[in-house]
Amino acid sequence: MHLDVSLDVPRGASTVASSVVKVRDGLAFDREDQLAVEEPLEIRLAGMSLAVTMRTPGEDEELVAGFLFSEGVIAGPDDLDVIAHYRGPDGDAAAGNVINVLLKGDLRASRERLRRNTVASSSCGLCGKVTIDAIRAALPPVESDLVLPADLFRRLTRSMGQSQRTFEKTGGLHAAGLFDATGELIALREDIGRHNAVDKVIGHMLLTRRGLPDRHILMVSGRASFEIMQKALTARIPVVAAVSAPSSMAVQLALAGDMTLVGFVRDGSFNIYAGARRVAVVQSDVR
Amino acid sequence: MHLDVSLDVPRGASTVASSVVKVRDGLAFDREDQLAVEEPLEIRLAGMSLAVTMRTPGEDEELVAGFLFSEGVIAGPDDLDVIAHYRGPDGDAAAGNVINVLLKGDLRASRERLRRNTVASSSCGLCGKVTIDAIRAALPPVESDLVLPADLFRRLTRSMGQSQRTFEKTGGLHAAGLFDATGELIALREDIGRHNAVDKVIGHMLLTRRGLPDRHILMVSGRASFEIMQKALTARIPVVAAVSAPSSMAVQLALAGDMTLVGFVRDGSFNIYAGARRVAVVQSDVR
Repeated sequence: MHLDVSLDVPRGASTVASSVVKVRDGLAFDREDQLAVEEPLEIRLAGMSLAVTMRTPGEDEELVAGFLFSEGVIAGPDDLDVIAHYRGPDGDAAAGNVINVLLKGDLRASRERLRRNTVASSSCGLCGKVTIDAIRAALPPVESDLVLPADLFRRLTRSMGQSQRTFEKTGGLHAAGLFDATGELIALREDIGRHNAVDKVIGHMLLTRRGLPDRHILMVSGRASFEIMQKALTARIPVVAAVSAPSSMAVQLALAGDMTLVGFVRDGSFNIYAGARRVAVVQSDVR
Repeated sequence: MHLDVSLDVPRGASTVASSVVKVRDGLAFDREDQLAVEEPLEIRLAGMSLAVTMRTPGEDEELVAGFLFSEGVIAGPDDLDVIAHYRGPDGDAAAGNVINVLLKGDLRASRERLRRNTVASSSCGLCGKVTIDAIRAALPPVESDLVLPADLFRRLTRSMGQSQRTFEKTGGLHAAGLFDATGELIALREDIGRHNAVDKVIGHMLLTRRGLPDRHILMVSGRASFEIMQKALTARIPVVAAVSAPSSMAVQLALAGDMTLVGFVRDGSFNIYAGARRVAVVQSDVR
């Protein structure tokens, strides 16, 4: 049996084969299984280590672009000069898991922006309301007259399911999908971290210079947390749909940012937690 | 309809009622729903802000004790002098969401320990192997001759399901359960963050001075990530069971730490990813 030996992950792979013992009603079988890869990614800004995030390799440049945007380090793609993997000598463990970033313009200014941002987010832990108020002061609400037919959400679910390729193999990945107002899938990204999948999708919009997704729908597998809503608000996405439940602060931020937040999206049914005016229904008993 | 007004969360609540519009096949209904509360918690060490984590209120002291232990700031309950909520004047937003910690002994030493730990974990982002090697050097493998009958896992699943009370209400919480070797539930904790639920369970063991859970089983809802395995290894827990898939680094760390890692635990079936010798089966085809 191949268990209890080391598991080597090829550089850049998003899945890896692993030996497992399957147990079914007390009987054990030797099998091969596919695992979702989790590896650390170090982001270096002008050679200085900025952050390490655990992620599934693939679309690392998008992840970093989206992360820097969400964190307020860059205001758009024009602030980026270089965003590229570190290429070390042969066998250098860092190659593949380090991204070097150079910004245009005054480096000190962007480092200062990051420092202020980090200090702000690590000292606002008083209560959810204080945090929401701080975000409301820093980020204006989305302005969008988008109205979506209720049956559009059924199509989003189907489209997500068809596109989640790695999930099918491993059962272990989150996905974020960005759709346009007609329900057309613009980009779908998978990652062991839901926030990374969202950063990749937003980074994709930035790096392909498609502009901000301000008439779009962000759909996430699993639940909608505060962090997901903050990233969506920063990117001016007016509608967020989650397969599972939203948290209280996700709803609070959706209300403060005038966003539409929809949860438990399954087939033809879903719940609207904020911004119901953007969903057109056939008939309504809502007062 | 009550949507698009603010959502007020009572201090310390773990769930909150919210108005939602339920849409079923194009028809909309006004309903009330329960949300899992997500609020920031600030951890202050000797008055200095140490970390902010988004968590579900409840068992905050356990969460902080487990967090400090997992991060290597304390080696056990004897290092803790005070761990208590900040009590401000009436209406102070910070009250309820700030925990003050005082350590016994030399404060400078523990701050230094934290600083070194933080630097280490934010500069090890080269590849999973480097990270695993660093952890292997810092933490010896678990030593446990525990052997569990395969049918024990069926009981763990049932026990978790019966005890996840907030999940039933909200559909939006993760759970971590700690079981002894006979399958008896020692503690179950719920949180919007899986890592918080694990910290709460470990913190519970510390604060009740039950000793390290070195003959126990940690069961987590959802997936097993690197972070969950690192917390388990630090607490010397020999067996981790996850309802869903493990990541590649979770398996790598289980192998390096000589832990047993079991995934996709559902009724009488599960997969063993590492440490199969601790599971006794009725019949085995495994070479």
